[in-house]
Amino acid sequence: MVKVKVISGGVTASSGFKASGVSCGIKGSGRKDLALIFSEVPAIAAVVFTTNKMAAPPVLISKKHVQEGVAQAVVINSGNANSCTGRRGITDAIEMAKITAGELTKKCLGKISPYQILLASTGIIGVPLPMDKLKRGIQNAVASLSYDAHLDAAEAIMTTDSFPKEMAIEFKIGNKTITLGGMTKGAGMIAPNMATTLSVLTSDIRISHSCLKRALRKSVDKSFNMITVDGEMSTNDMVVILANGIAQNQEVVEDSKDALIFQEALDFLTQELAKMVVRDGEGATKFIEIIVRGGKSFEDAKTIAMTVANSNLVKTAFFGEDINWGRIIASIGHSGAEINPHDIDIYLSHHQIVKGSVGLPFNEGEIKEVLKDKEIRVTIDLNLGDSIATVWTTDLSYDYVKINAAYKT
Amino acid sequence: MVKVKVISGGVTASSGFKASGVSCGIKGSGRKDLALIFSEVPAIAAVVFTTNKMAAPPVLISKKHVQEGVAQAVVINSGNANSCTGRRGITDAIEMAKITAGELTKKCLGKISPYQILLASTGIIGVPLPMDKLKRGIQNAVASLSYDAHLDAAEAIMTTDSFPKEMAIEFKIGNKTITLGGMTKGAGMIAPNMATTLSVLTSDIRISHSCLKRALRKSVDKSFNMITVDGEMSTNDMVVILANGIAQNQEVVEDSKDALIFQEALDFLTQELAKMVVRDGEGATKFIEIIVRGGKSFEDAKTIAMTVANSNLVKTAFFGEDINWGRIIASIGHSGAEINPHDIDIYLSHHQIVKGSVGLPFNEGEIKEVLKDKEIRVTIDLNLGDSIATVWTTDLSYDYVKINAAYKT
Repeated sequence: MVKVKVISGGVTASSGFKASGVSCGIKGSGRKDLALIFSEVPAIAAVVFTTNKMAAPPVLISKKHVQEGVAQAVVINSGNANSCTGRRGITDAIEMAKITAGELTKKCLGKISPYQILLASTGIIGVPLPMDKLKRGIQNAVASLSYDAHLDAAEAIMTTDSFPKEMAIEFKIGNKTITLGGMTKGAGMIAPNMATTLSVLTSDIRISHSCLKRALRKSVDKSFNMITVDGEMSTNDMVVILANGIAQNQEVVEDSKDALIFQEALDFLTQELAKMVVRDGEGATKFIEIIVRGGKSFEDAKTIAMTVANSNLVKTAFFGEDINWGRIIASIGHSGAEINPHDIDIYLSHHQIVKGSVGLPFNEGEIKEVLKDKEIRVTIDLNLGDSIATVWTTDLSYDYVKINAAYKT
Repeated sequence: MVKVKVISGGVTASSGFKASGVSCGIKGSGRKDLALIFSEVPAIAAVVFTTNKMAAPPVLISKKHVQEGVAQAVVINSGNANSCTGRRGITDAIEMAKITAGELTKKCLGKISPYQILLASTGIIGVPLPMDKLKRGIQNAVASLSYDAHLDAAEAIMTTDSFPKEMAIEFKIGNKTITLGGMTKGAGMIAPNMATTLSVLTSDIRISHSCLKRALRKSVDKSFNMITVDGEMSTNDMVVILANGIAQNQEVVEDSKDALIFQEALDFLTQELAKMVVRDGEGATKFIEIIVRGGKSFEDAKTIAMTVANSNLVKTAFFGEDINWGRIIASIGHSGAEINPHDIDIYLSHHQIVKGSVGLPFNEGEIKEVLKDKEIRVTIDLNLGDSIATVWTTDLSYDYVKINAAYKT
């Protein structure tokens, strides 16, 4: 186990990173809607993108830019997703990178190429970006870059989030202290028009591109890919990491002991950020952890955990504080994953309620108390193998329906 | 197009079929909870079963019995699913068939073997069947078999259904009039503990076993497998068909013109019954038809239609009478099916609202009127191929959450 220390500072906790968050008027409310994260030196970059086939223009352009493996800034607007905007959306996304590179260069922050800019947009879909506002916003954002504006940046990427989400940690590689910070947004993929999980992670670690890429992929699979509020996935999801090497540790390369240490630290941070998204799930009254163990494969365990987590019947039962294990069993059975139908155990917190697929008598009072908690853990043992998967989700409440039905496009 | 005439009579519309529906006290309410359907002569039988891996004992036993391809009765209890009841559940299911066969034989209705009995249970899971009550119920049901008790039977299989669901039709094979009747239950797979789609179809047609089996499989794929309220699938789903040959038409065999006629008639009946289930969806305020056309394959078209239909974001938007096509586009993109992301068209009723994946301007007043309707049609054109799939679903309302959260196990 790696020793990890939580510190303040979010995306600007690591040396050499500046950020800003400004309002450029894309959001009608006048709230912050443009975030910029900048590394003083070119950083090794990796991104995990949405697998949604309707990927938005900023996703497509960032995909192209990150191929170089090096980036120096991430620019993100909220309030408009630049999605389903046709040819113009592509032109606008290219322009967004160009303007950012141009403004950074103008401010003598180095000779920055548009290809070193990663970009993201989140918000309403089907409406073109207001490029004039965006341009002025980027100028402002560049002008206000600072070593401690992490919270401004975290606020500027919010859509229906009720709180900004950020965290930073320190850990050791050899005798060097490494800092890793991050911010994310999302209220459980259930925002008015389109909520996205959008995250930016920054670190001063020296690491090879292949090692960083692989670590991020693995980490997202254990964090952002393990949360669900309603099973939706947006056209704009993206998790970016920049590593600028300023910590001057010995370069971390694939399959090394140091790579394992970094992986563990990264997993800690991404899981904490992902759980914040679930905690902010619209209309959620419960935070539910579903652990599936004893699976034949990780995929099987994950499929079952996700199917149970996305079951509206299971979700409404938890909202009603009722331990309806029949609904859980039915979800397990229809998930398609491999099971032994006669040997499934289910636990609520530490109380076993099903053994060998048959209900056990339980103390109603005790179970009632557990169900009243804001945080609930369900453990499902498939008794088939060694694989385990953990998924985080919410219940389904009146407010979920209200928030998503009342919103008008 | 086959000429089909809707007639009354449900499962007893066809010659040689009797039915009954009685109360044996499994349901606390005293409502009817035991249905029996009986063919005076041995009938060719086919069944499509749930693919839920937690299949309940009555499913397992019926699977065994139907292998013979001949059956003479179907016995169904509601109020208790005999699911997750361990070894005892299996013994009870076998006993349920034995008792039914014994009582039918005793009443001199022929020498009936337990293997000619198909059985189903629906209701609460995890609780053993009260066999004494069931036995008295079966005795009653056998005693009250009659040629016109179709509605009693349809009522006896209800769980949270708000109305009994049955229909019968007539059509011609050669110069013979064939009758096909059926009943179903289910309020959208979203009942208190476990709702199931359970259907019994009866016909006097003479048909080969292989032809009947294939026709039912195909028909279920176009009807009961195309409806969804919340994407759940139960441990007890089953669609049974009995064909007793009393109409004395020339035997219908596979790949014949008559087989096509039968298929069309069967599809009509199963689709009408399936749509009744959706119309009874708990908390539903809208009946929504989602047509996906231009798919590369039927599977792709169906995957997309189902993903859109099961999207809580799409469902809540319809409940809120808002045409949020961004949510539809996002669902299409994340379904995993093959699409051209730049060439998707979406229609609401006959109004085109998206062309080439970009929103079109529309008349707000007109669209508002369409969204106020109780029945809404969304057409998605993938512009890729010739395949088409139609799915029927409901919106997601406060009442869905209420019904499913308020119920206590």
